Amino acid sequence: MPGTIGFEVRLRDGYQQALDRVTGALKAEGFGVLTRIDVHTTLKEKIGAEFRSYAILGACNPPLAHRALSRDAEVGLMLPCNVTVEVAPDGNGCIARIADPALMLAVGRFGDDPVLAEVAAEARSRLERVAQALRSS
Amino acid sequence: MPGTIGFEVRLRDGYQQALDRVTGALKAEGFGVLTRIDVHTTLKEKIGAEFRSYAILGACNPPLAHRALSRDAEVGLMLPCNVTVEVAPDGNGCIARIADPALMLAVGRFGDDPVLAEVAAEARSRLERVAQALRSS
Repeated sequence: MPGTIGFEVRLRDGYQQALDRVTGALKAEGFGVLTRIDVHTTLKEKIGAEFRSYAILGACNPPLAHRALSRDAEVGLMLPCNVTVEVAPDGNGCIARIADPALMLAVGRFGDDPVLAEVAAEARSRLERVAQALRSS
Repeated sequence: MPGTIGFEVRLRDGYQQALDRVTGALKAEGFGVLTRIDVHTTLKEKIGAEFRSYAILGACNPPLAHRALSRDAEVGLMLPCNVTVEVAPDGNGCIARIADPALMLAVGRFGDDPVLAEVAAEARSRLERVAQALRSS
């Protein structure tokens, strides 16, 4: 999709199975899921809005996060790496999206830092492999 | 600070007090804290690294999030709005940072969407008031 800001994968799974598979694929590349927001539950509870099943996961590779935060503490505004899983609006399975760390760490002054660029490139390679693993499984 | 990607405030508080004040100021502008990562604890547990007290909070204004997600589901890759609180490296109080939603929603194709620009502008105004409240309290 043009102008997309991450990797997008269509999964032929139900919602819970998609969440499990995404979590497992992240783990295989060293990313733990530190946070999870159930968007549909939150919107229902807070403002009574209906929304399809949609989760925002916060994925973190601790060695990479440590390198980035030690370099520039403001990087925390871009961590963890967001991964979303939703029931596809067309009802055909689920859609997983993974934010591209290279795009995230090109915002503002981060884009001028060679160390952050290196960390972002490694994170990107790993998350590309996560997307590839999800596509081929 | 040049090239900063958010609003930065120095607080003359201890860490817990800073967390409480930031959470309260967010609430006053309609942002609930949905997630919290204790970075220092996570890094210690996962890789044995020492880091100063540092939290990443995920703040969400449900009506604004709902408008943005209904417009473009990929926006979830930029939600919630990150807020960090850390003990200042110079030992002089704490530093709070709030990501600028207008910058976040200018990434990739989001930057071309007038509805997202409107949501981002409202979120930005609210979060600027949060920063202002923290500065003057």
